[in-house]
Amino acid sequence: MYVIAVYDVNEKRVGKMLKLCRRYLNWIQNSVFEGEITPVKLQEMVVEANKIMQKEEDSLILFKSRDARWLDKEVIGLERMSTDNFL
Amino acid sequence: MYVIAVYDVNEKRVGKMLKLCRRYLNWIQNSVFEGEITPVKLQEMVVEANKIMQKEEDSLILFKSRDARWLDKEVIGLERMSTDNFL
Repeated sequence: MYVIAVYDVNEKRVGKMLKLCRRYLNWIQNSVFEGEITPVKLQEMVVEANKIMQKEEDSLILFKSRDARWLDKEVIGLERMSTDNFL
Repeated sequence: MYVIAVYDVNEKRVGKMLKLCRRYLNWIQNSVFEGEITPVKLQEMVVEANKIMQKEEDSLILFKSRDARWLDKEVIGLERMSTDNFL
């Protein structure tokens, strides 16, 4: 499946979340990641994210699509590397 | 069409971008918006965004889907209001 993940966490936890998401997805902007991932791997990422996050303060939003072709991506302005997948 | 918009702009321009995106979409997290929008309205938003953004420094990413049902959204942790559409 294809996933877009966006987190908003307290500054103290940004580093950990960034590192975690990079293990599973491609970094495309600030706190935004995308990529193909299996449901099992995604579940694993969510479990790990829950260990890092403080529920009252942090959030992680996942947009899931069965196929990346159902989504059309457009980047306006600065385009970051979208291939820094450190898996 | 259904759109997810995520921006990463210099602090100085965050206020303007927030205000702009809120005019067209629903705010769901930090710099993340989503909503149903017509292609014409989206184009209008992009034109306005281009006036605010500095191309070398800022970015706006749009994920477009013909139908919101093709995307499954999951929120982990804090869920913000998703109904603050000020259109």
